[in-house]
Amino acid sequence: MREVFQNELDSLADMLVEMTEKVSAAMEKSKEALRTNDLELAEEVIAGDVEIDRLQLQLDKSAAEILALQAPVAHDLRVVISSLRMSASIERMGDLARHVAQQVRIRFPESAVPEGFEQIFKDMTTAAVRISHAIRELVSEPGLEAVPTIDDLDESIDTLHLAVFTKIAGSNLNPSQVADVTLLSRYLERFGDHAVSIAQRIEYLLTGEWKSELIPGDHG
Amino acid sequence: MREVFQNELDSLADMLVEMTEKVSAAMEKSKEALRTNDLELAEEVIAGDVEIDRLQLQLDKSAAEILALQAPVAHDLRVVISSLRMSASIERMGDLARHVAQQVRIRFPESAVPEGFEQIFKDMTTAAVRISHAIRELVSEPGLEAVPTIDDLDESIDTLHLAVFTKIAGSNLNPSQVADVTLLSRYLERFGDHAVSIAQRIEYLLTGEWKSELIPGDHG
Repeated sequence: MREVFQNELDSLADMLVEMTEKVSAAMEKSKEALRTNDLELAEEVIAGDVEIDRLQLQLDKSAAEILALQAPVAHDLRVVISSLRMSASIERMGDLARHVAQQVRIRFPESAVPEGFEQIFKDMTTAAVRISHAIRELVSEPGLEAVPTIDDLDESIDTLHLAVFTKIAGSNLNPSQVADVTLLSRYLERFGDHAVSIAQRIEYLLTGEWKSELIPGDHG
Repeated sequence: MREVFQNELDSLADMLVEMTEKVSAAMEKSKEALRTNDLELAEEVIAGDVEIDRLQLQLDKSAAEILALQAPVAHDLRVVISSLRMSASIERMGDLARHVAQQVRIRFPESAVPEGFEQIFKDMTTAAVRISHAIRELVSEPGLEAVPTIDDLDESIDTLHLAVFTKIAGSNLNPSQVADVTLLSRYLERFGDHAVSIAQRIEYLLTGEWKSELIPGDHG
């Protein structure tokens, strides 16, 4: 019985890893689609998001079944609750990667990134891709080492997010371009926030200490 | 034993109701702060958000204790899982009400709502307040009647959100004003999305049917 249960917990972990892999791939493609104004790649991200949603649904069902049939306690219960929380954040990261891709589609054949903003969005999307890799590693091999990296990357995304607003204020973009750039930057900033939230969950799992849901980076 | 357990489930419901009351009050104040450029009121919303976060933390702890000590199954288990999900959405609605208030603080003594955008934001915040009332009622007295109202209100917020972008494109706002208006509109749009997500959870609770986490309104 015990062994079956361990397999079920492992299968939750496997689904989380699969979700983070798909989110990483999505953000990598969104980054590239944004950089090269590649509509086809953007469409791939948009179409692929249902797969992440499907995985979340599957994970949530499995978690509910484990709770109903195994009635886990202590650490095992924490694993199940944390998995539910993390799957919601990872799913949301998938949505945000999709939103970036949708900005490419909305503006095509024009570029979603106006002249002069290429570098800052290259830096932001690079940090977003790196944070998604760190989350994937954290979920595959839970440990506290990756947590500071994730916090640092999130901080650098936040700094770039603020820099975008400074840049906007001094720009001669037209109003629609400003709206695009604002949303794009906001999506990437939220992507980082969710990564931090997942890292906090892993910390909870490893230490047993409850952390507030307060997400430090979200000052909007 | 059974009676104790029922009391614990009731206390989860009570905490959810309390959270929605606080979110409603926050959005009412944010609406008014935005309309009258009232810094003091905005500060109240910002300071009050920790209370919503505290309630969420308390609810999550209670839910975990119920899972560990009572091992609920069937409908009772669905109540506990749904409560966890809903508390996350309600907490997020509190954040978004706070973000609206923060826009007032950031721009003060200037108005966060530029000339010509007063009516559209009045309409959006009115719909946001109404949707928060509908959620409060739905959580107090679960039933499917309120669900279409919530969907309609969310749809009207989405329509207004799109209208904001049309209005921006034809405006002569300066870039920082455009960024402000874009974020404000996005916060309100997300506020509506979370309400829909809570309504879907209540539906799941009442019907037992799993719904996708796909949030229809979030086309970014």
